[in-house]
Amino acid sequence: MIFEYFEKTIPEPPESYIRVDAERLRKFISLVFQRLGVSKEDSKIVADVLVTANLFGFDSHGVQKLRRYVDFIRNGLIKAKFQIKIVREGDVYAVIDGDSGLGHVVAYRSMEIAINKALKHGIGVVGVRNSDHFGIAGYYALMAVKKNMIGIVLTNTRPLVAYTNTIGKGIGTNPIAIGAPTRNPPPYLFDCATSIVSVGKIQVLAKEGKKMPFKWGIDTRGELTDDPEIVLREGALLPLGGLGEALGGHKGSGLSLSIDILCGILTGAGWGPHITYKRRPINIGHFMAAINIEKFISLQEFLNRMEELRAYIKSLPKHPKANRIWIPGEKSWLTMQTRLKKGIPIHKAIMKDIEKIAKELDLESEVKNLIK
Amino acid sequence: MIFEYFEKTIPEPPESYIRVDAERLRKFISLVFQRLGVSKEDSKIVADVLVTANLFGFDSHGVQKLRRYVDFIRNGLIKAKFQIKIVREGDVYAVIDGDSGLGHVVAYRSMEIAINKALKHGIGVVGVRNSDHFGIAGYYALMAVKKNMIGIVLTNTRPLVAYTNTIGKGIGTNPIAIGAPTRNPPPYLFDCATSIVSVGKIQVLAKEGKKMPFKWGIDTRGELTDDPEIVLREGALLPLGGLGEALGGHKGSGLSLSIDILCGILTGAGWGPHITYKRRPINIGHFMAAINIEKFISLQEFLNRMEELRAYIKSLPKHPKANRIWIPGEKSWLTMQTRLKKGIPIHKAIMKDIEKIAKELDLESEVKNLIK
Repeated sequence: MIFEYFEKTIPEPPESYIRVDAERLRKFISLVFQRLGVSKEDSKIVADVLVTANLFGFDSHGVQKLRRYVDFIRNGLIKAKFQIKIVREGDVYAVIDGDSGLGHVVAYRSMEIAINKALKHGIGVVGVRNSDHFGIAGYYALMAVKKNMIGIVLTNTRPLVAYTNTIGKGIGTNPIAIGAPTRNPPPYLFDCATSIVSVGKIQVLAKEGKKMPFKWGIDTRGELTDDPEIVLREGALLPLGGLGEALGGHKGSGLSLSIDILCGILTGAGWGPHITYKRRPINIGHFMAAINIEKFISLQEFLNRMEELRAYIKSLPKHPKANRIWIPGEKSWLTMQTRLKKGIPIHKAIMKDIEKIAKELDLESEVKNLIK
Repeated sequence: MIFEYFEKTIPEPPESYIRVDAERLRKFISLVFQRLGVSKEDSKIVADVLVTANLFGFDSHGVQKLRRYVDFIRNGLIKAKFQIKIVREGDVYAVIDGDSGLGHVVAYRSMEIAINKALKHGIGVVGVRNSDHFGIAGYYALMAVKKNMIGIVLTNTRPLVAYTNTIGKGIGTNPIAIGAPTRNPPPYLFDCATSIVSVGKIQVLAKEGKKMPFKWGIDTRGELTDDPEIVLREGALLPLGGLGEALGGHKGSGLSLSIDILCGILTGAGWGPHITYKRRPINIGHFMAAINIEKFISLQEFLNRMEELRAYIKSLPKHPKANRIWIPGEKSWLTMQTRLKKGIPIHKAIMKDIEKIAKELDLESEVKNLIK
């Protein structure tokens, strides 16, 4: 694929944003967590997951969340030091207790375990309880992809979505990520919430005082709304497939519920209403699998077939109203290439807060050279 | 759950249908396949899958397909005798070659293998190539559920759906089924196509000369249409999430593509355009997993938690325009209870054809007592 400048989310207006060097940002964030008492190794993991979210254009899951983590650790709501425990284990499965630590680290270690099992036995499946938000699911799926495996990552979330035929926030946005290696970049990466859109998109619109471009939510009477404030407050997001069953809303709802069964019910984690921001530890659950491709088919054949699949999709007749045909993972990958060159756009208000964090933690000299 | 009469698909008008006894229908279909040279054991499997589809209210996947299978076997397009082979195998995984046999039997045997692996090792994952249509995915997921496991079943299909930002039939309706045991019936069973609706629904509407109640498809110009004939002929079904990316069509498309990677690319089966009705063997691929719950959490705790989950969903505030809140699998289960009592409704035209098949195979005495 020929490189081109592309960003999944465009910083608008550009003058409100500062472009920051990804590598230096990663180092800075790592130092922030170290100052808070997180081990160097764990700090590097969190920093990489957060920066990768920004590089991929999932900005709501990136450094914008730094303040939140800093405050949580300081207030003892997330432990800086924690001990991940394997509660149950066999050759190909494990149940992990995240000890209410940083979700990114818990998820990273859990996927490492799944990958190691798959290396030996072909499959590795890990259920996780007592975890926290882990950022972008795709990050962990790509860990498996780097080892020539298919990675599958599910997590539950607090309730944000109206289950089909109900009103109010009943079920999570429970995302799913599936990654697979390719011969040529980008790797295949399907990563999405099972809601009609992610809550991050709604939060951004609410912050900017904008309406939603489509009626992605319902109010307390169950009527469609384009007001992000209503959705975030007393209303709810719709599941993938929309309101009722007419366009498949029960499919999005059922997918979300199935993910909660795998992440929550099966692992002993929280599920549905038991995951709430009103108290911590939040006891989020994950479910991850690594599938060692070589055990099923020769890797070369798999990679050839993936290239054929991609070429086929790209060759399909384009819809007259569409700009382009996308393969899952392609937008994020192009955004990453662009942002590695041009820098990660950070809103000036968030940059101010990052400088404040740096000041609080005596990292002012580090924050100064972030700008690309 | 208190029993009540309920049918997911109501036979309309009732006078066009005959109610048939499920148990006698099962025996009759099994005899049909035996007369065609299929072994008694395999015939029983196909019969049970087909009748279960009718009992669950997935009528397009039931005995309506009998004529097709009869003709395929007679014309040598599907083998009556076939030998399923394990191509690759480890403790917890296997790649199965279905020898272009009856998809129902191939899938049944494959799920048996996955379950046996999960019994011993906690997880069983099976990829299948050289299979054929296997009917309802949920049937095989429920095989795992009966053994107190979570069953996950995916299959690819011939292209029927317009991939996001394209026109024409590019990708399959690639369904997913996830089943989990419960203390009290019905078991949890999420089973759906990743298209906005199943192609079966469209076929029924086309046959009845009706329009679709919603614009579930597009025509050759990419415009929304409610004409099932256009969708089946030169147009295409939409993915779950609809047209474009506004309501998440890329999520439905990506889910379908991910399922093709697992069922087709990984297993060595056909994928995308390589699965076509224009030639046989059709080389459909499946991907199945069984997860042994007891290895992750005590079964009693899992079952308790499932009951809590169900009670929670049922207790959510009902949407003012909705009749009822449904759990995945509940509609099918109620339909089954109803049809076990009242009989399976079979359209008189199809009944005529069944009688013809009976005559051809010298099973006339068997078909006479089918009526409930």
